[in-house]
Amino acid sequence: MVQMGLVGLGKMGFNMRERLRAAGHEVVGYDRNAEVSDTTSLEDLVSKLAAPRIVWVMVPAGEPTRETVVAFGNLLEEGDILIDGGNSKFTDDKLNAELLAAKGVGYLDVGVSGGIWGKENGYGLMVGGAAADVERAMPIFDALRPEGPREEGFSHAGSVGAGHYAKMVHNGIEYGLMQAFAEGFELLEASHVVEDVPSVIKGWQRGTVVRSWLLDLLVRALDEDPELDDLEGYVEDSGEGRWTLEEAINNAVPAPVISAALFARFASRQEHSSAMRAVAALRQQFGGHAVKKAGG
Amino acid sequence: MVQMGLVGLGKMGFNMRERLRAAGHEVVGYDRNAEVSDTTSLEDLVSKLAAPRIVWVMVPAGEPTRETVVAFGNLLEEGDILIDGGNSKFTDDKLNAELLAAKGVGYLDVGVSGGIWGKENGYGLMVGGAAADVERAMPIFDALRPEGPREEGFSHAGSVGAGHYAKMVHNGIEYGLMQAFAEGFELLEASHVVEDVPSVIKGWQRGTVVRSWLLDLLVRALDEDPELDDLEGYVEDSGEGRWTLEEAINNAVPAPVISAALFARFASRQEHSSAMRAVAALRQQFGGHAVKKAGG
Amino acid sequence: MVQMGLVGLGKMGFNMRERLRAAGHEVVGYDRNAEVSDTTSLEDLVSKLAAPRIVWVMVPAGEPTRETVVAFGNLLEEGDILIDGGNSKFTDDKLNAELLAAKGVGYLDVGVSGGIWGKENGYGLMVGGAAADVERAMPIFDALRPEGPREEGFSHAGSVGAGHYAKMVHNGIEYGLMQAFAEGFELLEASHVVEDVPSVIKGWQRGTVVRSWLLDLLVRALDEDPELDDLEGYVEDSGEGRWTLEEAINNAVPAPVISAALFARFASRQEHSSAMRAVAALRQQFGGHAVKKAGG
Amino acid sequence: MVQMGLVGLGKMGFNMRERLRAAGHEVVGYDRNAEVSDTTSLEDLVSKLAAPRIVWVMVPAGEPTRETVVAFGNLLEEGDILIDGGNSKFTDDKLNAELLAAKGVGYLDVGVSGGIWGKENGYGLMVGGAAADVERAMPIFDALRPEGPREEGFSHAGSVGAGHYAKMVHNGIEYGLMQAFAEGFELLEASHVVEDVPSVIKGWQRGTVVRSWLLDLLVRALDEDPELDDLEGYVEDSGEGRWTLEEAINNAVPAPVISAALFARFASRQEHSSAMRAVAALRQQFGGHAVKKAGG
Repeated sequence: MVQMGLVGLGKMGFNMRERLRAAGHEVVGYDRNAEVSDTTSLEDLVSKLAAPRIVWVMVPAGEPTRETVVAFGNLLEEGDILIDGGNSKFTDDKLNAELLAAKGVGYLDVGVSGGIWGKENGYGLMVGGAAADVERAMPIFDALRPEGPREEGFSHAGSVGAGHYAKMVHNGIEYGLMQAFAEGFELLEASHVVEDVPSVIKGWQRGTVVRSWLLDLLVRALDEDPELDDLEGYVEDSGEGRWTLEEAINNAVPAPVISAALFARFASRQEHSSAMRAVAALRQQFGGHAVKKAGG
Repeated sequence: MVQMGLVGLGKMGFNMRERLRAAGHEVVGYDRNAEVSDTTSLEDLVSKLAAPRIVWVMVPAGEPTRETVVAFGNLLEEGDILIDGGNSKFTDDKLNAELLAAKGVGYLDVGVSGGIWGKENGYGLMVGGAAADVERAMPIFDALRPEGPREEGFSHAGSVGAGHYAKMVHNGIEYGLMQAFAEGFELLEASHVVEDVPSVIKGWQRGTVVRSWLLDLLVRALDEDPELDDLEGYVEDSGEGRWTLEEAINNAVPAPVISAALFARFASRQEHSSAMRAVAALRQQFGGHAVKKAGG
Repeated sequence: MVQMGLVGLGKMGFNMRERLRAAGHEVVGYDRNAEVSDTTSLEDLVSKLAAPRIVWVMVPAGEPTRETVVAFGNLLEEGDILIDGGNSKFTDDKLNAELLAAKGVGYLDVGVSGGIWGKENGYGLMVGGAAADVERAMPIFDALRPEGPREEGFSHAGSVGAGHYAKMVHNGIEYGLMQAFAEGFELLEASHVVEDVPSVIKGWQRGTVVRSWLLDLLVRALDEDPELDDLEGYVEDSGEGRWTLEEAINNAVPAPVISAALFARFASRQEHSSAMRAVAALRQQFGGHAVKKAGG
Repeated sequence: MVQMGLVGLGKMGFNMRERLRAAGHEVVGYDRNAEVSDTTSLEDLVSKLAAPRIVWVMVPAGEPTRETVVAFGNLLEEGDILIDGGNSKFTDDKLNAELLAAKGVGYLDVGVSGGIWGKENGYGLMVGGAAADVERAMPIFDALRPEGPREEGFSHAGSVGAGHYAKMVHNGIEYGLMQAFAEGFELLEASHVVEDVPSVIKGWQRGTVVRSWLLDLLVRALDEDPELDDLEGYVEDSGEGRWTLEEAINNAVPAPVISAALFARFASRQEHSSAMRAVAALRQQFGGHAVKKAGG
């Protein structure tokens, strides 16, 4: 059993603390929300951990994570390890690692998949960093990852940054998978050939080529709302899809499916598309085609 | 100068009659709308033409054109020629030609491009059919096509169906061109780096790689409405884009740009996308991600 | 236990006979290959079955299936049922059903998923046709489908044609899923950030959002050939992807992911792309850009 | 008439010097290639110009341009103007402008379109920077831009960076336009319905919706090589397409056509696609589908 700090007790961090404690580990959690926090400050958290320490940071990517890392750079000591388990961009990891290395503090970046189901099912983990640091944190990873062979729910992806890179690509793939199911769903709905669309999708859960966890979740959503009428077709994107596409561009890798999935999300959020107004304008200009006037 | 019949005096046919008459040809026009029609019936039209006749049909593609061809199959005589200048699917042409061939009537299919500007600028023409029939109708084609070398505004694309096929592909390309300009326009609008978007686009009309008639039309539209605010981003599609994509599929030709342009039109007409509701549902299921509730 | 005929003992039919017999059913199989056939002709097969009969046809889609249905139209009797379990286009089903209905023979169309793994795991089944016919064939479906709740590996999708329609959409989705994984794999390979790509992908099998049967198969392929060097990037397509896209067009459903996956397959089979030669030619024309000369 | 320096006398710069001199301007050109250079060094070039000076830099984007700007930062004086006419990324412009502003030197960024044809036809120009600097350089712009109204071949797009941004979007659109024509060309070639593909494309030059300079260039290429057999379908990309897509991502602008055009270029350069090997591997795993073995 290990002792560890855990900073950030939101939807993900809170559940992870539960899973870690259930596995017998001692977790000192910190959150700005005092109701869920075990301690009053980062300083206090550090003081409650015996050296050499392991601190897991689970706060929003970007500035919040960067600032937390900087803060720990002034609090941790040689031999400690800081783990960033958030959805950080892999390019942040090198900066974090260098900052901490100057103090002798180790750094691991961990891509964590599984969402709200991870507490029960375990989290898929992709780790970047030095092998020795990975080894030291392995009891934590073993508690967080799903039951079954370690190599099926955990990977040491490479040096610093590789964990978040692997997670980024994982999420890019996820965008494509979701959009593929979504297009099939829409075609089934629109064509009216299949009479009971939810029952067909439910029937894909066993034996078919498309069986998958996302399909199970789609079945679950359709059980609750068979035509998904309660939702709007408005979809956010959270960074990793964009970064995957940027990396595809940087590496000259064709990514038509992942980009299509990302663009579908962009379009879903537009009330008025400048592009499609331009197409309408062109058709009106050359063909005298009827167009829809705004407000008409 | 030739004598000819012209059936269908809508936006396109009406203008074509003007251009043909301006070139000195004798045109007997028929339309269901008596106000613009020169004659009272197809029978009357045929009786007013000296054999061997040429009749140009310019009615909506599909049933209206097919029915008109059938009607003329019972009215025309051996040696006459019927020309379908509408936006018919190329697969209709073989049926039309066979039906008329049984009566000894020739058949030409003509793809006509240029929209409402054709009256003044001339129409781009793509013709399918027998060389002898093309030769006989050449005075008509010469009157309709733009000034300049014949081969730059007219082509004999091949046997029956080739004219409409060429026009179909032309329109598929047109979809792609329009969407390319539209995406660029939207990016200029969204990024706010360029201060006066219409002036930049106007400045592309000479010397640049993208100079084109569609660009000129976009400039014209922006002159009238600099942010295209008067229009909705709602765009119809009229057949040829779909057929081009079907033919790409049939011939195993990758068509990512033409399909993207077509799908953007489909999406522009959707108020609620089943696909994007499915993606929203999946995100809600696995991540507890906030979603927009319908009506919320 | 039921008695049935099974026509077509290829890769799929042969395995299905095994699974059906293992479940205790009496299967009289016919194949042109006498080595695997239980009977010498369709006539003989029919004579070996007691009325009312059930005959399952499992031959290649298109002409072979259509011809087999016609043959059975002359052999089966009122009250018999013919099942087409091949990958037929849904539009064939109506023709088959009408032909057989004239003889009083029932017709079911069944989409069968699962490939070579179905013998062991069971096959995902999507069925179209009359409820009474589905009910009569249910013991067969129960033997073929996977263990577990019937509704998770079987659906009665609707009337005739709905089974193959559901399978068509299933396969369209499958194209998209495969391409999503493929793009992610290529990016991991190309970027060289992740050190051991197969171990990262293996580590996605538990706990992650992308866990799925296709991922398990990718892991299996990488276990055998870690860089997939033994294969060429040459991918056939087998009909359903094209039909899904045709149906998307017919129903004005945007399908950017499914079309991208199909076009990637088309492109994978091209040694020389006319399109890309045209782009190279244009760049050469306007910019004097260096291009690759053929044979150079 | 103005006096000016011009650094970089490659394909573009050399032609521009010709055009500028033909318009009566005094151009002191510098190039590392002494055969074309008017002067021996940047220092010498500066010494030959009377203050306040205008120097146009036309060297490759990225490091070469950045280094040249730094060098001129040490050579130019308050009141001089430096113009970057290369294909620099718009983000470089702010750095350049700040560096020079510290010395009191003005900065303009100019996107230049037109390729090798610009010498004769004039170049389309998009300019970013302060209005006063634009005004001072206007005689140069007027000499370089095409005949006709200034606003049809020139725009002052906005402050520093806006010129290159406009050019970047122009090139992104250009990618889409080229790919649209390319897909249409391939379909015409593959379908064999049209008998003489080059003559159909030539016939699109007048009257049609797709008439454009790129079409004229395609006609020119087909005149030289009717099946484009002398070229390989291998297409480079030169930065602006990638940057356009990055900016689309940054601004949440759907860019399915521009991305498809870029990805088609990426794919055109791949001998072995890891992605398509992964798809082939998956098909082999689930279906026992025949695949092509490498080297087979």
